[in-house]
Amino acid sequence: MKYSNFFIPTFRENPSDAKIKSHVLMIKSGMIKQEISGIYSWLPLGFKVLKKIIQIIEDMHESNGINQILMPTIQGSDIWKISDRYDTYGKEMLRIVDRNDKELLYGPTNEEMITAIGKHFIKSHKNLPRHFFHIQSKFRDEIRPRFGVMRAREFLMKDAYSFDKDEKSGEQTYERFFRLYLRIFEKLGLKIIPVRAPSGEIGGNLSHEFHLLLETGESKIFVDETYLKKNFSDLKISEIKSINSFTDELYESLNINQSLIHLKSTELGHIFLFGTKYSKSFDFKIDYENDKIFPYMGSYGIGISRIPAAIIEASNDDKGIIWPKEISPFDIVLINLTSNNENTTSFCEDLYAKLKVNNYDVLLDDRSERPGIKFSDADLIGIPIQIIVGKNFVDKKEIGVKTRKDLKESTVSSENIIEFLNQMKI
Amino acid sequence: MKYSNFFIPTFRENPSDAKIKSHVLMIKSGMIKQEISGIYSWLPLGFKVLKKIIQIIEDMHESNGINQILMPTIQGSDIWKISDRYDTYGKEMLRIVDRNDKELLYGPTNEEMITAIGKHFIKSHKNLPRHFFHIQSKFRDEIRPRFGVMRAREFLMKDAYSFDKDEKSGEQTYERFFRLYLRIFEKLGLKIIPVRAPSGEIGGNLSHEFHLLLETGESKIFVDETYLKKNFSDLKISEIKSINSFTDELYESLNINQSLIHLKSTELGHIFLFGTKYSKSFDFKIDYENDKIFPYMGSYGIGISRIPAAIIEASNDDKGIIWPKEISPFDIVLINLTSNNENTTSFCEDLYAKLKVNNYDVLLDDRSERPGIKFSDADLIGIPIQIIVGKNFVDKKEIGVKTRKDLKESTVSSENIIEFLNQMKI
Repeated sequence: MKYSNFFIPTFRENPSDAKIKSHVLMIKSGMIKQEISGIYSWLPLGFKVLKKIIQIIEDMHESNGINQILMPTIQGSDIWKISDRYDTYGKEMLRIVDRNDKELLYGPTNEEMITAIGKHFIKSHKNLPRHFFHIQSKFRDEIRPRFGVMRAREFLMKDAYSFDKDEKSGEQTYERFFRLYLRIFEKLGLKIIPVRAPSGEIGGNLSHEFHLLLETGESKIFVDETYLKKNFSDLKISEIKSINSFTDELYESLNINQSLIHLKSTELGHIFLFGTKYSKSFDFKIDYENDKIFPYMGSYGIGISRIPAAIIEASNDDKGIIWPKEISPFDIVLINLTSNNENTTSFCEDLYAKLKVNNYDVLLDDRSERPGIKFSDADLIGIPIQIIVGKNFVDKKEIGVKTRKDLKESTVSSENIIEFLNQMKI
Repeated sequence: MKYSNFFIPTFRENPSDAKIKSHVLMIKSGMIKQEISGIYSWLPLGFKVLKKIIQIIEDMHESNGINQILMPTIQGSDIWKISDRYDTYGKEMLRIVDRNDKELLYGPTNEEMITAIGKHFIKSHKNLPRHFFHIQSKFRDEIRPRFGVMRAREFLMKDAYSFDKDEKSGEQTYERFFRLYLRIFEKLGLKIIPVRAPSGEIGGNLSHEFHLLLETGESKIFVDETYLKKNFSDLKISEIKSINSFTDELYESLNINQSLIHLKSTELGHIFLFGTKYSKSFDFKIDYENDKIFPYMGSYGIGISRIPAAIIEASNDDKGIIWPKEISPFDIVLINLTSNNENTTSFCEDLYAKLKVNNYDVLLDDRSERPGIKFSDADLIGIPIQIIVGKNFVDKKEIGVKTRKDLKESTVSSENIIEFLNQMKI
């Protein structure tokens, strides 16, 4: 992609209304624009990151045999009255009346709708287990939207739902999702602490949240100190149930008398095994041998549009964002420092084509801007590798390769650049 | 994908409330489920088709240098008051009041929001032209939602927007989108007729719609008979402007006195060059030499969630759907007729693995259902190639290869199957 044709409206000044680093940097790097309070547009650079995250989450769900569907954003009030959550959900639910005076709402979550889908189609335990996920906009009318996409009103969520024939099978499913979540966050380059959580609004008695430790986080969790270096990915359901870390709320309600460390964090995922709560309220019964049973259900959410902000919060310096390679919008930014010079320009065009052939996703900075602007934009938008083509190329056929993380620059002969990059294993 | 793990809830009976073939077949093949009037969930088979269409549209926009963004579904009323469309849009606009009594709406289209984005970021003609697209849910509160996803209230639209410095550059952009649309519909296997259209609600004076001729279509267009076999893909802007086919509405308003044929159709795309209408109402001015000018704008929509229905409407028989290969949910359905037989089962598992290695996307029907059910489901869901493994395999190592389109079956030695498929160039 050429910079001249990829819209990245960067700003030099800090936005006045942004209070945390990720919000500041997402605005300055032209990733997002607030439309109204808590509602954002994702601009090309921001959307490219979001899409990479979506792709990883989709692929990992699919390869785990979870079927992707798409439920609508707008729901009828009727199904929420069946579950008795229409009144209790409160003001966070965005309520709507259509032209025929029918009560609608913008879905804050989909337990009711997936239960109605299950009841419509699933008639026998032979059809179980079934696991579904979708990635769809949600709306929660937060009283105080803040911190950019970290706490927005309209946001993108991956929510999955499971139907099993009984508690044992449901717990196996829960264990699978627990492990899948840890692998997803690992793939996203995020070190996550799973904590036991109350099930609150959703219901049931088994629930965990997945937290990223962040000084600027809005949550606080109580963590067993040994967990800071623990690998959780092989836990069995019995070990998952007895995890020795807790959300604030659960810690207090359980009256835990143990020395745990109290850390600030941000919640990125939340899973629930709520059992027969919704299948019972929907009278959703299936055949099981000579009997009728209520399917055992769970739900599993990841706050997708919060993830880019969380990653930036965890990975930045005073010059800007430092993207982990897995979700960086590009692999390389190729900076032509002297775009009015025919030599560097034709070299950069050739190298750009060669890099693409070698499967690198490259942003070619072909703008007629001053070198200072190009350097500061490259540092700000945080692509892991910068290739710098300027005076040294004209004089000595040498180019610079800078890694964004440590800002270290190597000088490389222009002939050896592809080989050099391949050896870096970016 | 194994059928046992891919949720396709097919029905034998026709749904009572579906009036056109595509609606009937999408319900019977378990592609969609209506949640409330005009609002649908996409189940795994339906969503897989939708995703293929989205991928094609995204790739073709991106390779044309159009930047993907994501604007939110919920908009503030303020920007619609600026353009003076808040009152005029009428009851099709879903209006919402949030917890702070702020007037919101569910976006039926995004001209206002993109103009606000342009005004926020674009300051000079040197930043132009700029082309953006997004794929996002829209809501139009149709008085009579009908025909399934063909005329839904919540639907998925690809809408693109362009900013140019003047009319000439705007017309070049319009020409590019016109041609891109023809290539997209061609790639989707749809023979489209472009017609001149009134610009209506959106404004401006240059507008075209892209229609699929369909006996069950809700629109009617007046078409020059020679156009039925015409290739439109190389038209220049002057020829585009004088296209001799019209929407009903434009035909009547222009008092055209020419013998054109009058045909039923469905609208799948609509493009507008509305010029400075929105940049003027938003007072969105940019630097141009020593002057200030209003950017020249256009918008370009494709009704994504309507396309699967349109394709089915155009391609089906009395047994079910016949997917064109480009957007078929799978390339091949591999039917194990005797899933209780170890020989066929282990052969099918091996062949399934081999086909995947050869880059075929395969649905393996591993269910323990009767052959009749497997055959009728395969015909119903319309995958182009059926591989049938049953008694002839056990007796003679022979398998059947049936093409869904003409239902013709060839007998192939099980050893030669990959070679046979490769030669079919599916």
